[in-house]
Amino acid sequence: MVKKFRIGSPFDTEAVIEKIEISDTKDFPLGLSLGEKAVLKFNIEKDDMIFGLGEAVRGINKRGWIYESWCSDETNHTEDKRSLYGAHNFIVVSGKEKFGLFVDFPAKIEWDLCYSECDEVKITLDGKSADFYYIKGKNERGIVREFRRIIGKSYIPPFWAFGYQQSCWGYAKQEDFVNVRENHRNNNLPLDCIYMDIDYMERFKDFTVNRDLFPDFKAFVDDMKANNIHLIPIIDAGVKKEKGYSVYEEGHEKGFFCKNADGTDFECGVWPGIVGLPDFLNKDARRWFGSQYDALSDLGIDGFWNDMNEPAIFYSVDGLNKAMKKLDDIRGKDVDIWGFFGIKDALMGVQNSMDDYSNFYHNIDGKLVCHKDVHNLYGAFMTTAAGEYFEEKFGKEKKLIFSRASYIGAHRTSGIWFGDNFSWWSHILLNLKMLPSVNMCGFLYCGADLGGFNNNVTRDLLLRWLTLGVFTPLMRNHRALGTRAQEAYQFGDCKEFSDVLSVRYRLIPYIYSTFRRCSEEDDMMFRPLSFDYPDDKIAREVEDQLMLGDECMIAPIYEQNKNGRTVYLPEDMSFVKLSGENVKIEKLKKGIHYISVELNEVPLFIKNGKNIPLAKPALNTAELDTENLTYLL
Amino acid sequence: MVKKFRIGSPFDTEAVIEKIEISDTKDFPLGLSLGEKAVLKFNIEKDDMIFGLGEAVRGINKRGWIYESWCSDETNHTEDKRSLYGAHNFIVVSGKEKFGLFVDFPAKIEWDLCYSECDEVKITLDGKSADFYYIKGKNERGIVREFRRIIGKSYIPPFWAFGYQQSCWGYAKQEDFVNVRENHRNNNLPLDCIYMDIDYMERFKDFTVNRDLFPDFKAFVDDMKANNIHLIPIIDAGVKKEKGYSVYEEGHEKGFFCKNADGTDFECGVWPGIVGLPDFLNKDARRWFGSQYDALSDLGIDGFWNDMNEPAIFYSVDGLNKAMKKLDDIRGKDVDIWGFFGIKDALMGVQNSMDDYSNFYHNIDGKLVCHKDVHNLYGAFMTTAAGEYFEEKFGKEKKLIFSRASYIGAHRTSGIWFGDNFSWWSHILLNLKMLPSVNMCGFLYCGADLGGFNNNVTRDLLLRWLTLGVFTPLMRNHRALGTRAQEAYQFGDCKEFSDVLSVRYRLIPYIYSTFRRCSEEDDMMFRPLSFDYPDDKIAREVEDQLMLGDECMIAPIYEQNKNGRTVYLPEDMSFVKLSGENVKIEKLKKGIHYISVELNEVPLFIKNGKNIPLAKPALNTAELDTENLTYLL
Repeated sequence: MVKKFRIGSPFDTEAVIEKIEISDTKDFPLGLSLGEKAVLKFNIEKDDMIFGLGEAVRGINKRGWIYESWCSDETNHTEDKRSLYGAHNFIVVSGKEKFGLFVDFPAKIEWDLCYSECDEVKITLDGKSADFYYIKGKNERGIVREFRRIIGKSYIPPFWAFGYQQSCWGYAKQEDFVNVRENHRNNNLPLDCIYMDIDYMERFKDFTVNRDLFPDFKAFVDDMKANNIHLIPIIDAGVKKEKGYSVYEEGHEKGFFCKNADGTDFECGVWPGIVGLPDFLNKDARRWFGSQYDALSDLGIDGFWNDMNEPAIFYSVDGLNKAMKKLDDIRGKDVDIWGFFGIKDALMGVQNSMDDYSNFYHNIDGKLVCHKDVHNLYGAFMTTAAGEYFEEKFGKEKKLIFSRASYIGAHRTSGIWFGDNFSWWSHILLNLKMLPSVNMCGFLYCGADLGGFNNNVTRDLLLRWLTLGVFTPLMRNHRALGTRAQEAYQFGDCKEFSDVLSVRYRLIPYIYSTFRRCSEEDDMMFRPLSFDYPDDKIAREVEDQLMLGDECMIAPIYEQNKNGRTVYLPEDMSFVKLSGENVKIEKLKKGIHYISVELNEVPLFIKNGKNIPLAKPALNTAELDTENLTYLL
Repeated sequence: MVKKFRIGSPFDTEAVIEKIEISDTKDFPLGLSLGEKAVLKFNIEKDDMIFGLGEAVRGINKRGWIYESWCSDETNHTEDKRSLYGAHNFIVVSGKEKFGLFVDFPAKIEWDLCYSECDEVKITLDGKSADFYYIKGKNERGIVREFRRIIGKSYIPPFWAFGYQQSCWGYAKQEDFVNVRENHRNNNLPLDCIYMDIDYMERFKDFTVNRDLFPDFKAFVDDMKANNIHLIPIIDAGVKKEKGYSVYEEGHEKGFFCKNADGTDFECGVWPGIVGLPDFLNKDARRWFGSQYDALSDLGIDGFWNDMNEPAIFYSVDGLNKAMKKLDDIRGKDVDIWGFFGIKDALMGVQNSMDDYSNFYHNIDGKLVCHKDVHNLYGAFMTTAAGEYFEEKFGKEKKLIFSRASYIGAHRTSGIWFGDNFSWWSHILLNLKMLPSVNMCGFLYCGADLGGFNNNVTRDLLLRWLTLGVFTPLMRNHRALGTRAQEAYQFGDCKEFSDVLSVRYRLIPYIYSTFRRCSEEDDMMFRPLSFDYPDDKIAREVEDQLMLGDECMIAPIYEQNKNGRTVYLPEDMSFVKLSGENVKIEKLKKGIHYISVELNEVPLFIKNGKNIPLAKPALNTAELDTENLTYLL
């Protein structure tokens, strides 16, 4: 049961596709007050739990912190952060009363989830026009399904996108990509995709390829495909301002870039230098941008990742000038300690500044709309621009596309990845905790940068992280320029890596069919144990294990120098260790157990009475035999 | 058994006080190679563990990362960091062979502990003059005792320093302190000390008190003491350059500040603006600085904390000028994206820059010694300056003194706190993990900022953190300016806080006597389970529980929204929950258990056949009845 309530005249976010009658707000069961900002307020009981908010830091149970819906280019995924890249405004409150709440509102929202007051939820919208959806269901999973039904089926990527993928900011030359391919193959390490980060472009210009690096790009793409490797280039939101660059010139002439208040193009600095920001909220601009992908599709590219689309702004021309002026003012005097911090703060404040987001505009049906009022749609609409275009031109399930920034609704045309994490052990666990939360919001094709994007990996960190990654639909190893090399063949003894990656390919039939079912049935692929065992006091609080599909439970090792971990079984299960072609099985009773797991083993738990299919290992999805499957038990 | 080996002509760090004959380096059992830098290299087995390095991030078992000994003003205690504030160059390798290694060397050391190669330890000294101590003992704890014996007995603070302490960067007016005192007392919250952060000084000048804020400071100190509250002011390393400020003028005249190569005073910016850095490595300057504390001791102050003594350098005059010049160069051109990052990097690089540390000098017996070659002694010698002066003038155990930066040796005259942590749940665990590591290096009086220094606390975070804090010798709640108020009375329902803090006072007789014994017997107060149960495969890997003294095990809750946790008992124990005057006891068998713990309960485990004394709750140590004790079991 979904009830819809409306205040003001909300912007059409395209999140909900089912037509639902609007109920009278006086029947809205949560305390609603309307002033400059709309505020929702209600109390919950001591042990009630709050799930949702999709891509965010901290626990699966979100209680006890303030979150903000504000798509942010935030690289430090530490506990104190309030926002990451996505704005996923859906929560499920689980107590004596259970209900879901979706706040369909594209500007900033503050979610004070029992932070200021231990028993009070206070949701503050930066505005007063919004749709609220109040959702009941027989349990948490049922509430999620009700919600998912009204927002539409989740995106399904091509089958090969379930293979293992390698990425690195820094692969530049053709030879780099060939090396990655060959090093995997020669070491018996499966691989389906290699990503192209910003290095492949000509001066970071979208939809261009650097001809010095790739003299015949089409032939290169074809050669990779002949070797069963898909190349996946990055597309950034900003379009470089450059004379003679057709994308920029066309966008500028057609008025397809975001505007300053005076109608001139808003200009800011990102990787390419000064760029125009395509106005994805304008339907014509959106369609125009979607069609630009043809430049690469025509060369054989069948997958893309959209980045920097919160949008990330290193600086605006105006913002930088202001900071420089402040700096000059301070330098006029003797620089004292406060002057020094003043200079630093002025420069640091230039990046992703609220001043900038408040100072440019979208042209929506001829009306100028301030960016900050629709900020959280920007990246989502960029990606939908591509996703919709692809579906129309190539059909469903033909192109891989996923995004850094997102809003609910984009789940119908694309996936997401969890952005610029770190090579931290704690980020294995954060990766795990985000999975059910984003599933709740419709994002099924998702995953984190395995091994960690920022900073330096260790061999054991990568191996352990991969044992979670073998279960995530997007299984990509990615790292930043200047960090320690982290391809699976970089650490000697590739056998252990091969053992773990082979498990992925053995599981693909199961993962893929579970994924499809969850898309078709509006279901979650990953669930917290509390969803399945709501009356089990211990299971309710477990946040380092997840239910997968209807058959399994996963519990990776996520600490260094550990040969095992404790795991809680909410019912009798088979404890399975998969490694290459090997399978070890042990029956375990409901309760707490210490399990030993070697670095090359993937732990998995199968519920009694359930079973899952296994394929033979393969070096890529094209070579995967999906017909002749065996059963695990 | 301790063997000492020497290369070159090492600087006297004063770390080791026992006279040990120097053995021939050809008998040194670890691979030693001498080039521009001395390198130690040896291999260890797959499951061997490495303990030690004192104050550092990551696990109790330090294997699998590169650490650096380099006292650092590092506020982000994330997993990827290599250094924090202390340089504690002692490790214990625990495998088939067990041994300790102390590298007595005051410049930078890189500890590659099986990071680059999974089975290789490589220790690189930034120089080639050092003493190495190779230590054998019957087990890990025995090796630590051998080491502790040669570095001398650990500092014992006054008894009242074991009471609960409240701190906040931002208490400024007299009234602020009175409020803290009264709010604790009125809410039945015990308290022994209130800290004075930099706000109390006159323009951040050491050994001054702002007379506008404290018109009669001595009377104020007396009034606080009459209420059984000790005021503990901060002392920073840098001395403000100001005409008429006697400390500066005297230091300058006597040549007691660090020098540039040309013999002029090295000047840098810290809180007070431009300062001179006292030359603590110069014996005369050190004694002179120690005597300056009289200015506050004479007013009744009996405790101090030394800060910013890595030394932290916001900028040097020279470094800032260079950065500004770079900035001007860039601005001459059009600022493109690289120019922007160039400006940012130039300014960010000014703080705590290696250029600065390489460009000033100490005057040691008339010889100029470059700071970077003795960097890790600076904060230690600052604190020893005070500690030695106090012992001489007032006797042992009379003054509380602890430091942010440290080197082994300083443990004889002072404690340490773990610096500027965050209000993160993960920092409860980091706090726990550091305790045995710093104990190994002699630092017994220690603790972290409970509730977290940076960012915003939650009620439950503070309560859970305090349940670890009740066991740490230094039990201080401290936070940064601008963060959420985190005194125990700030969250409503003080009863739960009172319940937890009361437990501290009930335990003080036990904690204090254990502390004294560990100081006298060169023992660790906190030990990893692996030290006590080396053959227990599960116990060996436990890093979220600690052995305390010879009687107990502790296992705090360190995750949000949890009513309990799993805990591993390496032998049968009594599980005790202490809360105010209440005690719940349950006998548990060896093995893994799930325990429930309410927010106002302190969990504790007592070994069979052991017992510990309990006092009656008290509101401060002066009122604590240490005679009439009962036994817990």
